[in-house]
Amino acid sequence: MNAADGIPEALRRIVRPTLILDRARALRNIDRMAEKARRAGVRLRPHFKTHQSPEIGSWFRERGVTGITVSSVRMAERFAAAGWKDITIAFPVNVLEMNGIRRLARRIRLGLLVDAEESFDAVERDLDVPVGIWIKVDVGPRRSGVSWDRPERIASLAGRVGRSRRHALAGILTHDGRTYAARSPEEILRLHAESLVRMARARESASAAAGGAPLPISVGDTPSCALADRFDPAEEIRPGNFVFYDAMQMELGSCAPDEIAVAVACPVVGRRIREGELVLYGGAVHFAKESVVDREGRTVYGYLGAWEEGGFGAADARAPILQVSQEHSVAHVGGGRASRAAIGDLVPVIPSHSCHASALHRGYLTLEGTRIARIG
Amino acid sequence: MNAADGIPEALRRIVRPTLILDRARALRNIDRMAEKARRAGVRLRPHFKTHQSPEIGSWFRERGVTGITVSSVRMAERFAAAGWKDITIAFPVNVLEMNGIRRLARRIRLGLLVDAEESFDAVERDLDVPVGIWIKVDVGPRRSGVSWDRPERIASLAGRVGRSRRHALAGILTHDGRTYAARSPEEILRLHAESLVRMARARESASAAAGGAPLPISVGDTPSCALADRFDPAEEIRPGNFVFYDAMQMELGSCAPDEIAVAVACPVVGRRIREGELVLYGGAVHFAKESVVDREGRTVYGYLGAWEEGGFGAADARAPILQVSQEHSVAHVGGGRASRAAIGDLVPVIPSHSCHASALHRGYLTLEGTRIARIG
Repeated sequence: MNAADGIPEALRRIVRPTLILDRARALRNIDRMAEKARRAGVRLRPHFKTHQSPEIGSWFRERGVTGITVSSVRMAERFAAAGWKDITIAFPVNVLEMNGIRRLARRIRLGLLVDAEESFDAVERDLDVPVGIWIKVDVGPRRSGVSWDRPERIASLAGRVGRSRRHALAGILTHDGRTYAARSPEEILRLHAESLVRMARARESASAAAGGAPLPISVGDTPSCALADRFDPAEEIRPGNFVFYDAMQMELGSCAPDEIAVAVACPVVGRRIREGELVLYGGAVHFAKESVVDREGRTVYGYLGAWEEGGFGAADARAPILQVSQEHSVAHVGGGRASRAAIGDLVPVIPSHSCHASALHRGYLTLEGTRIARIG
Repeated sequence: MNAADGIPEALRRIVRPTLILDRARALRNIDRMAEKARRAGVRLRPHFKTHQSPEIGSWFRERGVTGITVSSVRMAERFAAAGWKDITIAFPVNVLEMNGIRRLARRIRLGLLVDAEESFDAVERDLDVPVGIWIKVDVGPRRSGVSWDRPERIASLAGRVGRSRRHALAGILTHDGRTYAARSPEEILRLHAESLVRMARARESASAAAGGAPLPISVGDTPSCALADRFDPAEEIRPGNFVFYDAMQMELGSCAPDEIAVAVACPVVGRRIREGELVLYGGAVHFAKESVVDREGRTVYGYLGAWEEGGFGAADARAPILQVSQEHSVAHVGGGRASRAAIGDLVPVIPSHSCHASALHRGYLTLEGTRIARIG
């Protein structure tokens, strides 16, 4: 049915856009980050929002991970059901979900984030089971958190949590999303260092207000965790995307093109040889309309890989996806590749953002043909 | 649980991002388009990719619609199961799904699109049940289709289909996606008129090659269908998005802010009064990272509505969402609204693109509290 050479046997029956996982690459990515955390003397509390799969979660457990990060109460419920006993919901606490939070807190060691006294008031009032409270600090990206340069606010909130009779102040936590807009690995490392300095400053205010002992610091963006080797004074890192990486991380320099562990296999439904274009069945609802800016300044929604050595190869910067609609997309592959392709071929699309692409599928198909479910 | 006045009773128990449908608005949008088609003397073959719901589909059936458009074999299967007997799959035929296509063609009147002889060869070779073949013509957007200004290619393909002993040449079809990049209603109408002229030219080549009688013309983008009143020489229109509309259509001028029929109700998890910002639980996996450019040149991912008159109000251009992550977003609402909001409020987010936002949910919750399922 498929004329392409090199496509793994287990994928030959695919007829529509399908999320593919290179298990060996994901395992290598996990091993490398676990080893880095060991060497740096920090606890790895991986974020599971990227893979959202109990089975992939078990690969972390086999490598010694005991605590995880998620971004919603629902995700925490699903991973608690899969046996995880120590979960931080790294998202400003949603006070509307207090019932679910209470049920979780009865079963597992639960960490919550607060960045406003208003939120903590609701926790104090409505949550009668002890949890750990992390104060979310904004080191610059201005998404959520108390700004690192407002020591009086940090102190006030830390003091408030510190005086709670029920809940413990777990520490201060940040996610430096600024690294996603960096233009070079050097800039990522500079932001990472700056972020650690800012967290150290924030900790001074928080620790003093809460009683004196230095509070734990947790940090977590994948670009910093992939590129840096030292994290002190942090004692915990929470990267998530690194399990798969993607075209965005590749452009940032946090991974190599052949370390990306997921792709969406897409049927070719059209080709324009003169223009060097392939029209794919596969669009925003299959790999998400997320983009990166490539070296030529183009907005790119993903790159093609190539079937080789039993896998989907490396993201090919010469084969970008430059147009995306709901169900189709156009890959600009050049005349040579377009003329060798045929309608009915399957091509691997390396997504720009693997978290968003994976969220559009119910599970993964490994290169060996095994199905791995995501939480529902 | 929720302090906001005006929130419909049926929505008060929402605790996480939930897709909301204003049924009355959707029905008005359907009525208006059905009436326009009647007055213009064209057949309305609505595209169901936007709502993907058998129940919403039945609202069209009650208004006299008998034929529909979908964009995948799977969608065709689901709507055939829901009783639809006349379905056009408006997507370049995916030759890898010939088995599914054959099963469908045995049960219903099926239309397929081809834009390459290579694709039609596969249909001729592998599909032993008759279908209607539409030649997809590209009037300008360069996504898929035979370019309107390549009469020899159109003629060659039409001749090839016309000589088939099994399959019928149904006509020529286009989707003028250029209207989505238009800067004014006038430009949309100009593109619409140009598109019809180009389709008339393409028909000359196709009809002559296929035996002489003028072939049917089918057109279909929502901006043109919303703004134009005349469609001749087309005899069929296939808009889809109009059932819900969205912020993108609003910016284009194809709908009014209070005609948009879907929103995602999102909990407020943070607020910065001085900056006039609300942090929402609701992000790319809840309403999609699709954007529009507003009058001030900003990239906007959606607008807040407001709970009023039993619904979610109108998209408020003064309350744009300017930052989106996987699970959260930041709405810039101004200091007044930020100071009146509270953590734990629910706010309605009018999505930039309702097709993509809806695709992220399993179903709709109406303002009256009824759940409406989407196809799985």
